[in-house]
Amino acid sequence: MTEAEIIHLLQEYKAGTITEDDAVKKIVDVPFEEMRFAEVDHHRELRQGMPEVIYAAGKTPAQVRDIFYSLYTHSEGNLLATRAEREHYEKVREKVPEAVYDETARMIYLDRDERIQRDEAHKILILTAGTSDIPVAEEARLTAYLFGNYVTACYDCGVAGIHRLFAHLPAIKEANVLVVIAGMEGALASVVGGLTDKPVIAVPTSVGYGASFHGVAALLSMLNSCAMGVSVVNIDNGFGAGALASKINKLR
Amino acid sequence: MTEAEIIHLLQEYKAGTITEDDAVKKIVDVPFEEMRFAEVDHHRELRQGMPEVIYAAGKTPAQVRDIFYSLYTHSEGNLLATRAEREHYEKVREKVPEAVYDETARMIYLDRDERIQRDEAHKILILTAGTSDIPVAEEARLTAYLFGNYVTACYDCGVAGIHRLFAHLPAIKEANVLVVIAGMEGALASVVGGLTDKPVIAVPTSVGYGASFHGVAALLSMLNSCAMGVSVVNIDNGFGAGALASKINKLR
Amino acid sequence: MTEAEIIHLLQEYKAGTITEDDAVKKIVDVPFEEMRFAEVDHHRELRQGMPEVIYAAGKTPAQVRDIFYSLYTHSEGNLLATRAEREHYEKVREKVPEAVYDETARMIYLDRDERIQRDEAHKILILTAGTSDIPVAEEARLTAYLFGNYVTACYDCGVAGIHRLFAHLPAIKEANVLVVIAGMEGALASVVGGLTDKPVIAVPTSVGYGASFHGVAALLSMLNSCAMGVSVVNIDNGFGAGALASKINKLR
Amino acid sequence: MTEAEIIHLLQEYKAGTITEDDAVKKIVDVPFEEMRFAEVDHHRELRQGMPEVIYAAGKTPAQVRDIFYSLYTHSEGNLLATRAEREHYEKVREKVPEAVYDETARMIYLDRDERIQRDEAHKILILTAGTSDIPVAEEARLTAYLFGNYVTACYDCGVAGIHRLFAHLPAIKEANVLVVIAGMEGALASVVGGLTDKPVIAVPTSVGYGASFHGVAALLSMLNSCAMGVSVVNIDNGFGAGALASKINKLR
Amino acid sequence: MTEAEIIHLLQEYKAGTITEDDAVKKIVDVPFEEMRFAEVDHHRELRQGMPEVIYAAGKTPAQVRDIFYSLYTHSEGNLLATRAEREHYEKVREKVPEAVYDETARMIYLDRDERIQRDEAHKILILTAGTSDIPVAEEARLTAYLFGNYVTACYDCGVAGIHRLFAHLPAIKEANVLVVIAGMEGALASVVGGLTDKPVIAVPTSVGYGASFHGVAALLSMLNSCAMGVSVVNIDNGFGAGALASKINKLR
Amino acid sequence: MTEAEIIHLLQEYKAGTITEDDAVKKIVDVPFEEMRFAEVDHHRELRQGMPEVIYAAGKTPAQVRDIFYSLYTHSEGNLLATRAEREHYEKVREKVPEAVYDETARMIYLDRDERIQRDEAHKILILTAGTSDIPVAEEARLTAYLFGNYVTACYDCGVAGIHRLFAHLPAIKEANVLVVIAGMEGALASVVGGLTDKPVIAVPTSVGYGASFHGVAALLSMLNSCAMGVSVVNIDNGFGAGALASKINKLR
Amino acid sequence: MTEAEIIHLLQEYKAGTITEDDAVKKIVDVPFEEMRFAEVDHHRELRQGMPEVIYAAGKTPAQVRDIFYSLYTHSEGNLLATRAEREHYEKVREKVPEAVYDETARMIYLDRDERIQRDEAHKILILTAGTSDIPVAEEARLTAYLFGNYVTACYDCGVAGIHRLFAHLPAIKEANVLVVIAGMEGALASVVGGLTDKPVIAVPTSVGYGASFHGVAALLSMLNSCAMGVSVVNIDNGFGAGALASKINKLR
Amino acid sequence: MTEAEIIHLLQEYKAGTITEDDAVKKIVDVPFEEMRFAEVDHHRELRQGMPEVIYAAGKTPAQVRDIFYSLYTHSEGNLLATRAEREHYEKVREKVPEAVYDETARMIYLDRDERIQRDEAHKILILTAGTSDIPVAEEARLTAYLFGNYVTACYDCGVAGIHRLFAHLPAIKEANVLVVIAGMEGALASVVGGLTDKPVIAVPTSVGYGASFHGVAALLSMLNSCAMGVSVVNIDNGFGAGALASKINKLR
Repeated sequence: MTEAEIIHLLQEYKAGTITEDDAVKKIVDVPFEEMRFAEVDHHRELRQGMPEVIYAAGKTPAQVRDIFYSLYTHSEGNLLATRAEREHYEKVREKVPEAVYDETARMIYLDRDERIQRDEAHKILILTAGTSDIPVAEEARLTAYLFGNYVTACYDCGVAGIHRLFAHLPAIKEANVLVVIAGMEGALASVVGGLTDKPVIAVPTSVGYGASFHGVAALLSMLNSCAMGVSVVNIDNGFGAGALASKINKLR
Repeated sequence: MTEAEIIHLLQEYKAGTITEDDAVKKIVDVPFEEMRFAEVDHHRELRQGMPEVIYAAGKTPAQVRDIFYSLYTHSEGNLLATRAEREHYEKVREKVPEAVYDETARMIYLDRDERIQRDEAHKILILTAGTSDIPVAEEARLTAYLFGNYVTACYDCGVAGIHRLFAHLPAIKEANVLVVIAGMEGALASVVGGLTDKPVIAVPTSVGYGASFHGVAALLSMLNSCAMGVSVVNIDNGFGAGALASKINKLR
Repeated sequence: MTEAEIIHLLQEYKAGTITEDDAVKKIVDVPFEEMRFAEVDHHRELRQGMPEVIYAAGKTPAQVRDIFYSLYTHSEGNLLATRAEREHYEKVREKVPEAVYDETARMIYLDRDERIQRDEAHKILILTAGTSDIPVAEEARLTAYLFGNYVTACYDCGVAGIHRLFAHLPAIKEANVLVVIAGMEGALASVVGGLTDKPVIAVPTSVGYGASFHGVAALLSMLNSCAMGVSVVNIDNGFGAGALASKINKLR
Repeated sequence: MTEAEIIHLLQEYKAGTITEDDAVKKIVDVPFEEMRFAEVDHHRELRQGMPEVIYAAGKTPAQVRDIFYSLYTHSEGNLLATRAEREHYEKVREKVPEAVYDETARMIYLDRDERIQRDEAHKILILTAGTSDIPVAEEARLTAYLFGNYVTACYDCGVAGIHRLFAHLPAIKEANVLVVIAGMEGALASVVGGLTDKPVIAVPTSVGYGASFHGVAALLSMLNSCAMGVSVVNIDNGFGAGALASKINKLR
Repeated sequence: MTEAEIIHLLQEYKAGTITEDDAVKKIVDVPFEEMRFAEVDHHRELRQGMPEVIYAAGKTPAQVRDIFYSLYTHSEGNLLATRAEREHYEKVREKVPEAVYDETARMIYLDRDERIQRDEAHKILILTAGTSDIPVAEEARLTAYLFGNYVTACYDCGVAGIHRLFAHLPAIKEANVLVVIAGMEGALASVVGGLTDKPVIAVPTSVGYGASFHGVAALLSMLNSCAMGVSVVNIDNGFGAGALASKINKLR
Repeated sequence: MTEAEIIHLLQEYKAGTITEDDAVKKIVDVPFEEMRFAEVDHHRELRQGMPEVIYAAGKTPAQVRDIFYSLYTHSEGNLLATRAEREHYEKVREKVPEAVYDETARMIYLDRDERIQRDEAHKILILTAGTSDIPVAEEARLTAYLFGNYVTACYDCGVAGIHRLFAHLPAIKEANVLVVIAGMEGALASVVGGLTDKPVIAVPTSVGYGASFHGVAALLSMLNSCAMGVSVVNIDNGFGAGALASKINKLR
Repeated sequence: MTEAEIIHLLQEYKAGTITEDDAVKKIVDVPFEEMRFAEVDHHRELRQGMPEVIYAAGKTPAQVRDIFYSLYTHSEGNLLATRAEREHYEKVREKVPEAVYDETARMIYLDRDERIQRDEAHKILILTAGTSDIPVAEEARLTAYLFGNYVTACYDCGVAGIHRLFAHLPAIKEANVLVVIAGMEGALASVVGGLTDKPVIAVPTSVGYGASFHGVAALLSMLNSCAMGVSVVNIDNGFGAGALASKINKLR
Repeated sequence: MTEAEIIHLLQEYKAGTITEDDAVKKIVDVPFEEMRFAEVDHHRELRQGMPEVIYAAGKTPAQVRDIFYSLYTHSEGNLLATRAEREHYEKVREKVPEAVYDETARMIYLDRDERIQRDEAHKILILTAGTSDIPVAEEARLTAYLFGNYVTACYDCGVAGIHRLFAHLPAIKEANVLVVIAGMEGALASVVGGLTDKPVIAVPTSVGYGASFHGVAALLSMLNSCAMGVSVVNIDNGFGAGALASKINKLR
């Protein structure tokens, strides 16, 4: 029930074209419809500059194409499909030729939102421990970028060669929000957490072998970080980290 | 090596009282000393309005008393000892009679920092699923408060009686940062994450029995949250959540 | 907002004592309040004959006493406090002398609801594998009884002496809902599940040692039951099983 | 030994054509044969309107075809092969051309039982949290349908967008038995459990990544549900949930 | 129904004092009663020389006393209560003064069966890796002894000082059945399994710390033994190992 | 050093062609060489009628062929290659045309040992819970057979249809050693363990899905069996069970 | 900042071409740049005779070729690419024809360092329990060899046939560092640890099935070794073991 | 059989007082006895300067006293009882008054070996991440010291305040062997491993809470260390680390 419809209802009641009973009943019945309406409305306002997101994994190329195209025509923001394969992209391109595919990040996207102004004074910094963590990092970086942030990245600066990390100390000190991405022992999150006073989002990756147990070692390591200000998202969840970093980075 | 010492070194070299070789050597050797100096200095500035924190668990009452007293006399900020027992407090009170003990939060604290101005426009909201989660929540709440934030709380609004949660919808919409604390199945984090566009810090608690495995069920549930913008800290880590919430809440 | 209040609002609007804008706003704002109202109302009707339940674990004796007493005076149904210690009971008795304590089931209860008529044609049967499972079984049995069911029980009929189980075959065939409670290897659920066409609720218990891992062995065993119609609740969750059995048993 | 055979034995003994010893021996030897007989007989009566079920996984297409055909010719109820691949179906169709294959539910079935009358007053409702849970849900839905129930379904109403779930509140209130299917954090079971007084069967799915551990996160979440009346079946066990829902739904 | 009762039934039927219908009904109803009867009877014969066993854990001292006394008066075999505390013993002694308590094995027993003849040509050998494994070993040893076997033992011959083990090579070669008891890494089972052609029963113990996880390390090690002829019982299950060793040792 | 060499050494010493010192040194140095010799010798005698075994997994077809052929020419016992693929067999057949491949048991074997006399009075019985457990069961059955035992088998008699199991009660009562093979919840081991006084070897299989965790559920279930006389081997270890059953069955 | 640059700075300051403030600032800013410099320098010296290592897994053949070629032209030490597939090798050979590929160890290497002198008095001994452990062992062996050590190896001497191990006792006694590689139950590490006073590096392998859990059983076994002087590296980490063995072996 | 006995045997044989057959038999039988003899002898020589060690946990105070006293009188080296309580010490002091108890390290020891010369050029460095790790560190430090090493220690230099660690860089560069002790996320091992070219022994501790799982997080972290040259011992195993460090440090 839109506001217009409520007004109409009130007027009908006032005019006597519907009974009191019916009016009461309609009002009692709307809450959940209302809530949804409110929700959407509320979102509409907030979403200024936020991309629409499609989770491609488990969807057919044709399904992704259709949703992508529908969002393409019904919104003016950026578009973004995560965990997408090249087959998904081939289909999307049929209907949205200007869509781009990033193979590393496994994302199809459209970077078109002209309302976005990336604020260089509020940087998000993405760090990885190794080169194998880069796909997850690129997912996070591209997500944060499409959500309208100024993003920088330093890859392959794991703690076993700590001088490599320290070469990036100025970037660390400058960042407003940090995303630390690491597999194996995940120690980078703790070290970075000790070098900044800003929030650190840790992303364990499934990189490693043997007793890394597909990211469990890094996950536990990050949850137990002795550094203050570190929180953790799911294993390999680059998108989640990028989106959360954006939420935090836009707080004023 | 303080700045004064560097100046002294340069002047000695200029005056010829030390050789070029010795001057080079001393400069090469200082980096880590320097870094520490820089760190402390840097921290001093940033820590305006931040409390000093003592982790009391595993320390004797006398140790906690002495550290507390030392911080009491050498700083002017708030003081805060976490995971403290009443025995710790009895000792602390000997030297700092105005210290307060919060039995639920298991914290000894001193709320004295007059520089703090809590900003009501940037609220941190603490939510719990059940009454058994309250000790962890109070640890988070008191931490965030002593770090200089305006904090509100809604306890016992688990998802099985979801109307109780919805009664707090205005508070949820108003909050700038949310801390969701839950044991058992930890579903509250996902529901709250879907009702706000602000960052949500999820704290699994060891509340529950049987297959809750001392918080593992809630931890996994929260890591897998289908809501965007949820990150997780360690089981029962109320202090960590409160401190991180403060870091995020103070970003401008 | 009660129905009366909605009517009042409509009439005020019709009478012109509130503006259209205000009426719309009030209607938009009510959903969640409404939902809560609806919920409570709905529950009131459904709860005819259902006991009020208090989870005593983690509450002080005084807290349990006060909640128990409040429910005692404000309702006319049965009352029931689970996971209660004798200390809880001593306090409850101060205010509700006719309350009873069942040490085995660890429950304080009041069996006073005169509206209940237990239907012998719809029996709930509680079975245990061993004598050590009896506390959990008694929690289930007493719960189902206080919820208004006719309950029978056969204890200590584990599968290693299967003739003991078969002596109870008539009771198994007669039951409308079965609750099977077992620790160790939890095999009883599968065997019973194969002997009845009625729903079986399996409760793993933490009985056992070594590689039973406090009920995990039984839990996994029951989840993997090869018998059709078996579902599982949490380890040692006698109350949950009894309440669910009651829900199922009352379907018509 | 059928009843007729027992009578014959008694008469032979009475007539003296067999000795007392032989008669005793035959009676002592029958129990297990008897039990089987009783079992089968008992089942025959109960199974009115129940489909015959084949578990196809691990069987060759030819084996499934032969069993399917045998049941086809020897019974008049519905037939149903679960976890079936298209190859199984191709073979089955050779002998039972009217068999149908549902690719999503991975089931081959024959919906022919004319004795079934689906009772709309006793609905089973299938809910899923996401679109990826649909295959498990379809397995449950089709199973419950072929077992003779009236089944409705609401897919993709996870808790992160809770208004989507609430749009289905009338369906939830109407259902007699609910099956909640969710991967990731599995929170939907608790929320739904709090919105109904009817039994809820929770099915964790292996949907998710990282720390979902192929359904373990959802499984633990559901076992620890704070809502009363929720029980759990094995991960991805749509068939088991559908069959159990049918058992419960047919209780009167 | 005993044989005598069946005969009586047949004769009554023949005499016409019961109808054919009643006779048939009685015969159809007996199976499970019969099975139990058969079972007991069968056991009686087999149990010549086997002790009666009580699992004392979880039973009160008075309960153990009463069961022990009842078995004492109704059988003539050995008696044995496992996992018994001294309090259990004090009570048992009230009624059976000649009962003995073995504190290490935590067993109360009565070694009185004069029919037992221990066969030295069929030895059971109990080996432990360390001295901390001795309580479990004594439980196994005393069990096997009371079950009527000739038992020898070599304690503290772990693989890290393999010469200590090899000093017992003659005993290993002579044994008919071997029980190997070890915590920590449990390697002894594999080494002994390679030195004998007789069956080896491996018992992991909860001895160890850190990553021994209360016996899990030893359990996994033993299950994966590369030696042929090793099987495993539950962690710390000395009684089970002793009883199984006896079963195997008595095969001829 | 062979016996002949020791004699030669003694004679040389006696003859004075080597010194006392040298003789002592040689004797001190031999132990490990000796041990190996002794071992082999000892085994030769014991292995009368035992097959030679090759573990084919991880070996190339050519390697298996060569080892098989070597054993074929150097022994006269049965030969047996486990975990073998058809490719292994194709190669083996090149050199040993009379070798047989059993696809279900994944074994290549040669059944040629004429010294074997299978003793029908000492039967090994192999039972499985379901049809999917048959490959593991056939590995056990064929192993026990080739080791010289009389083996019978009853497949697909899981506990959910317990009358199917009881139809085999005579076979169970007759067996000297029982091997119970089950996946899913593994309950069959406990039920069978309660029906026999003979040793039961339980083999968990990786059959099942979801929370069966590739055999862990069955493994834990079997380790926690409440029946006396059950021990467990590794998941899917049909060979190990068959070989151990043979060891036990040949004890006299 | 190189040493030359520091000297230049000092001289500029002395000459007055930069102010004291600027000089202080530059010195304060260098630490991390310095550290990196120091690190590299320090390494250059230490790395005399150490190979350059590339982790090939997750890199494309072209990437490995380019890094390999770059190291080939810029250093004179040995080169070594681990976890390399043949495709990697084909590419490397394009630019470095003398590179060698070891299929078992999955390593591409160049053995060209003429400064290396392998010291036979300091042997590294590699032992494996079975033949399936050989790939990991060869990775360790080749690594230790290319790092400049004298390496010997004894494969397939698991503890179940302990005489095979004892045949290598002289080699064990002679070794300066031992690497023990085993899957399944990993018992070899403890036995070898008891036979030497030198450090033992244990490498669990993922060899095994069922409850070996891809190396977890061996890992736990080795961590719990009762032998003094055993430490553990990650599952299947042959390279890590070889490199650590080299580090230890080169200590003087 | 001692050397004297072998000589006696040879002489008897030469003298004809025993037959050739008997002599051969005796020689064949000695190997294991011999091995033990050789072992002890071998150890005697190696153990010069090594302490005798008693594992006190699980032994009574009187047992520890007696073993300690026996070693005190029969050797001249250092003595050391690990995991000892003060009660153990009180008893030991009765017979060895000069024994010392270190409450932090939980060790009773006697530092009397005058043959030991600690070599300052070969330092062992013990590092801990936090103050709670100190008991494990002291166990390692005291062990290494009593084994005759020169040991230094830096406690509380976890990676979250990395400047604290870098203040100890000179000590790290100087050490010959490093022991890194950390709980929680265990990241210190990787960072230190990257700062030295010497072997690093990592000891996870059970320090931490929630998802540290009593040391498992640190254990996994250390096993997955990205730094070359790190190996791991059991959780809290300070003694093992100290003893292994000594073994490595004494290699020349």
